[in-house]
Amino acid sequence: MSDLARFSINQMTVRQLPLPRLVEECVRLGVPGVGLWREPVAEYGLEATAQLVRDAGLAVTTLCRGGFFTTATDLDDNRAAVDEAATLGTDTLVLVSGGLPPGVKDLAAARSRIAGALAELVPYAAGRGVRLAIEPLHPMYAADRCAVSTLDQALALARPFAPSEVGVVVDTYHVWWDDHAPAAVARAGAEGRVHAFQVADWTTPLPAGVLTGRGPLGDGVIDLRAWRERVDASGYTGPIEVELFNDTLWSRDGVDVLEETARRYVEHVL
Amino acid sequence: MSDLARFSINQMTVRQLPLPRLVEECVRLGVPGVGLWREPVAEYGLEATAQLVRDAGLAVTTLCRGGFFTTATDLDDNRAAVDEAATLGTDTLVLVSGGLPPGVKDLAAARSRIAGALAELVPYAAGRGVRLAIEPLHPMYAADRCAVSTLDQALALARPFAPSEVGVVVDTYHVWWDDHAPAAVARAGAEGRVHAFQVADWTTPLPAGVLTGRGPLGDGVIDLRAWRERVDASGYTGPIEVELFNDTLWSRDGVDVLEETARRYVEHVL
Repeated sequence: MSDLARFSINQMTVRQLPLPRLVEECVRLGVPGVGLWREPVAEYGLEATAQLVRDAGLAVTTLCRGGFFTTATDLDDNRAAVDEAATLGTDTLVLVSGGLPPGVKDLAAARSRIAGALAELVPYAAGRGVRLAIEPLHPMYAADRCAVSTLDQALALARPFAPSEVGVVVDTYHVWWDDHAPAAVARAGAEGRVHAFQVADWTTPLPAGVLTGRGPLGDGVIDLRAWRERVDASGYTGPIEVELFNDTLWSRDGVDVLEETARRYVEHVL
Repeated sequence: MSDLARFSINQMTVRQLPLPRLVEECVRLGVPGVGLWREPVAEYGLEATAQLVRDAGLAVTTLCRGGFFTTATDLDDNRAAVDEAATLGTDTLVLVSGGLPPGVKDLAAARSRIAGALAELVPYAAGRGVRLAIEPLHPMYAADRCAVSTLDQALALARPFAPSEVGVVVDTYHVWWDDHAPAAVARAGAEGRVHAFQVADWTTPLPAGVLTGRGPLGDGVIDLRAWRERVDASGYTGPIEVELFNDTLWSRDGVDVLEETARRYVEHVL
């Protein structure tokens, strides 16, 4: 089995690469999967993207993202995201659930609102063969992006639904600090709810806004191999997606970054 | 009872004020307590500071800080911090425990090292009448400042010792996002381990380095009054210290900031 058999490159890691170039380079390097984002997919065209990846034999490991339930007035945009996932041939829509609505200081209420939105969205997604994957985000995003800060919270939100309908994303960047996360990973795996596994490293100092400082694999403090082994031990056998938002990487040649990321994946994650 | 009866201003909030000016303004405004930091105290002189606050009738609610156990080679500096606390007349030394040592990726091992250092430091501190108050820091500081990210972890570290020896700091900025924190506050209070209560608000976007963006009371998303009520309900009746690291506040007139902070405390915390 190739070292890259489970490797998937999230499009945002090399967002400087236009879709056709990304697909071409993935094929050349033997990268079997890509995680896509709605905005660049829409820019290139949904159907055109679906055909591009299908013709290249690439798996779409995830589509990012639905969610932002706490500030949305309806679920139209989330239903559209489900449809796009189905068209792209991925079974996994990543959900970033949303933070506190303006003027609201009640995180528990925000989480309840997320639970309510899920209940409404699940039948629609299930009908289209798309699993909703709740991604806990690091607590530093709790206010403005995601009131779901831990795997325990994500699993609690998933529990009312079948594992084939709702699961979680394990992303090392968001959960590495949490001493409850290893047990949560084991439980998620046992329940069949690990719907995606993403890796990024933690480097300091964090940049202003804390969005674009995800560390290249091996540059930070996360024991990435230990996390991969932990997720594997939970029974997960799916893709391992590298998702880095990083200003320095974005300023470099995209193909270089892709090649380097694949090498670092083999060195630090496998 | 004055609205400011429990109010304490942490020196870092108005670090632009020289110590004598800070003390003078506290007396003028009826602020009964100050939280001090070792560096500015050393600059003014330890004995001189002790006499200054004693003569003014101010309580020193905490001394910041000891800790950084994970990278220290010995505890000499921590013993010095204990001595300084005793000289200043405060019974509470705040501990920021330290992050990961260079090249180390094992948070659990870092926490074990903290536990070992505590065991060594406690008898010394207890002999001088100084309580060690473990402050969990927000998980965004786990790598480089504090491997203790939650009140649950801080309480677990405190448990081997008497409540009169080791307790915790509850700081809204660090724990507001944590759904386990309310129960931990109740437990800490029941055990007599709430040794300090600090308040700051959470505002976004975070600044680069994420150290100097603590929100002025009322500017952010934390329900400060709910947290104060929660800490009170745990049985805590001590000072409420306002500790803001904020570039904008530091660029302003210090007396204005002190007056505004006292007003905001009454408005948003009481």
